[in-house]
Amino acid sequence: PKVVTLPGDGIGPEVTAAAVEVLREVAPDLKFEEHAIGGAAYEQYGDPFPQVTRDALQHADAVLLGTVGGPQNSPWNSLPRHLRPESGLLALRKALGCYANLRPVRVQPGLEHLSPLKPELARGVDILIVRELLGGIYFDGDRQIEGDTAYNTMRYTTPEVERVAKVAFWAAEQRRGRVTSVDKANVLEVSELWRRDVQALRDREYRNVHLNHEYVDSVAMLIVANPSRYDVIVTENLFGDILSDLAAVIPGSLGLMPSASLGDGPGLFEPIHGSAPDIAGQGIANPAAAIMSAAMLLRHGLDRPVAANQVERAVALALRAHPTRDLGGKADTRTFTHAVLDAVA
Amino acid sequence: PKVVTLPGDGIGPEVTAAAVEVLREVAPDLKFEEHAIGGAAYEQYGDPFPQVTRDALQHADAVLLGTVGGPQNSPWNSLPRHLRPESGLLALRKALGCYANLRPVRVQPGLEHLSPLKPELARGVDILIVRELLGGIYFDGDRQIEGDTAYNTMRYTTPEVERVAKVAFWAAEQRRGRVTSVDKANVLEVSELWRRDVQALRDREYRNVHLNHEYVDSVAMLIVANPSRYDVIVTENLFGDILSDLAAVIPGSLGLMPSASLGDGPGLFEPIHGSAPDIAGQGIANPAAAIMSAAMLLRHGLDRPVAANQVERAVALALRAHPTRDLGGKADTRTFTHAVLDAVA
Ligand SMILES: CC(C)[C@H](C(=O)O)[C@@H](O)C(=O)O
Ligand SMILES: CC(C)[C@H](C(=O)O)[C@@H](O)C(=O)O
Repeated sequence: PKVVTLPGDGIGPEVTAAAVEVLREVAPDLKFEEHAIGGAAYEQYGDPFPQVTRDALQHADAVLLGTVGGPQNSPWNSLPRHLRPESGLLALRKALGCYANLRPVRVQPGLEHLSPLKPELARGVDILIVRELLGGIYFDGDRQIEGDTAYNTMRYTTPEVERVAKVAFWAAEQRRGRVTSVDKANVLEVSELWRRDVQALRDREYRNVHLNHEYVDSVAMLIVANPSRYDVIVTENLFGDILSDLAAVIPGSLGLMPSASLGDGPGLFEPIHGSAPDIAGQGIANPAAAIMSAAMLLRHGLDRPVAANQVERAVALALRAHPTRDLGGKADTRTFTHAVLDAVA
Repeated sequence: PKVVTLPGDGIGPEVTAAAVEVLREVAPDLKFEEHAIGGAAYEQYGDPFPQVTRDALQHADAVLLGTVGGPQNSPWNSLPRHLRPESGLLALRKALGCYANLRPVRVQPGLEHLSPLKPELARGVDILIVRELLGGIYFDGDRQIEGDTAYNTMRYTTPEVERVAKVAFWAAEQRRGRVTSVDKANVLEVSELWRRDVQALRDREYRNVHLNHEYVDSVAMLIVANPSRYDVIVTENLFGDILSDLAAVIPGSLGLMPSASLGDGPGLFEPIHGSAPDIAGQGIANPAAAIMSAAMLLRHGLDRPVAANQVERAVALALRAHPTRDLGGKADTRTFTHAVLDAVA
């Protein structure tokens, strides 16, 4: 099978290299092909998602992404919108047809002290956020900035709602059987459709799953005040962007958070942390999230659960034995990666 | 001066009555006039914002609101959208022209232990969130649900952005002089306008205020991971709904959180907690947020800072001496209110 790697910007190349080393160890038959994305691709090709990268995806079985984007004051941020690094990321998601973004939020036993929450609240948290990734206000073509007015449109159709809700129900069946669908149906028509369609799908096809509906503002509170109440959360693109980043702080380091984006074609796997330009190139970035994304690639992208478990266990061991600086430890990228490699061997 | 009170639903009447008692004590010249809003108004008049209430606002100097809305399974939630309790609230905001919602988030010294965050993160937090309250996706008329599609429009104009940004800059000048404007300008055109206009206003008229811009997903993280980095946050309606509720959990009880909504006419003052139908009518609701909202009414609505300070100090004392159940104490609504009355006397 072929894995296309897109290292991207900032610490992306370093953490992706670490993840590839681990993949080579547990799945020696994989072939890798590296391509450009984001700011790096803009520098090389004048396009954050160049044709050569797009073409390469045709033959990919899975895609491993690093991170995309420059520092706040980067000249990239003043480019026309379609040339900015983020546009490359959005175009990539669209090209792959990845409509369901899965973000597991798990507090590892023994690492509760890293959480900004009190340990008794952080302990045992195990949430899966399923974010719709190709619709809503991110992609709708009805958008404009002109003179002193601007607007964007948050639009959903029933098929868009159903395909991502299916992923959430399916995931809940493998977990604790509970889905919370998040919307703002007390204010928005688009949320009314979302709520109606998610409920109808549950009543038609997933009667064994327990479904409830909550408002996005309330979930933003409760995910902090009482995170253990959630099993699977499913929501639209913009709410999912906010809530999944919010939930990601619970384990205490973004350096621990992987993600998988699934759809009709090859899956896209990426750490959720940013490109961290301030520490790029120093060899000190925590590659755990990239390596855990590689584990999700093995599980969801290539259907290799045994190898996926092997990697996840190895990361858990390495985190205890050789924590990186963001975790209050001393390990650099190499040391941590070697600890993972030793543990999988 | 005349204060119109709108007790509303659930615990609204109980906590509003407590706040009125306190107002009578510190400002004996105030006149009060009570009217219906929300589900209660729907029951009485078939309209969540009836004409008689609307008329009464003409002669109000300030409006004290309780809480609005029924339980999850309330029949009110299946009414046509314009008859639901929330529509009454939105119509009220619009009728009063309250475009700036001020939500102070302050962790009281000695009450850090109530926070879901580690005490060292909660200590000293003092944020003011300024939420745009009359624009964006909440009110835009371009909205529809029809068959298997639905949409809403997030629209802003420069004058709408500027008037609320002014409130944020003005508030920052009384505080620590820093404003963080929150948007999603890497994806949304409407955020591009927002960011541009907030920055231009700062550069034109508020050069003494330090302004930075952050993405909404990042703020959702950082407000939990490092809340002390924020002074004033200004943002559009939907982001403000989510972030202000999120920030409200930091002090540990929604029962402590007041709000003020300001605009061209009389201000609207309300606790941010919901109507808590499960404990309504039992006399155990925590009236602190309603009483603190009354303090904001004195300060911002009637320009009586001395009386406002008096009430705020009294609430702080009462919270220590007679905490209510939501704070792990035993005081009921009466006991707590009497403690406040004693302390102001
Ligand atoms: C970079 C940005 C466009 C992106 C998003 O909002 O989807 C990021 O925040 C994410 O969540 O992956
Ligand atoms: C009840 C609802 C319409 C309202 C809002 O979203 O504005 C509430 O959540 C609030 O924040 O006051």
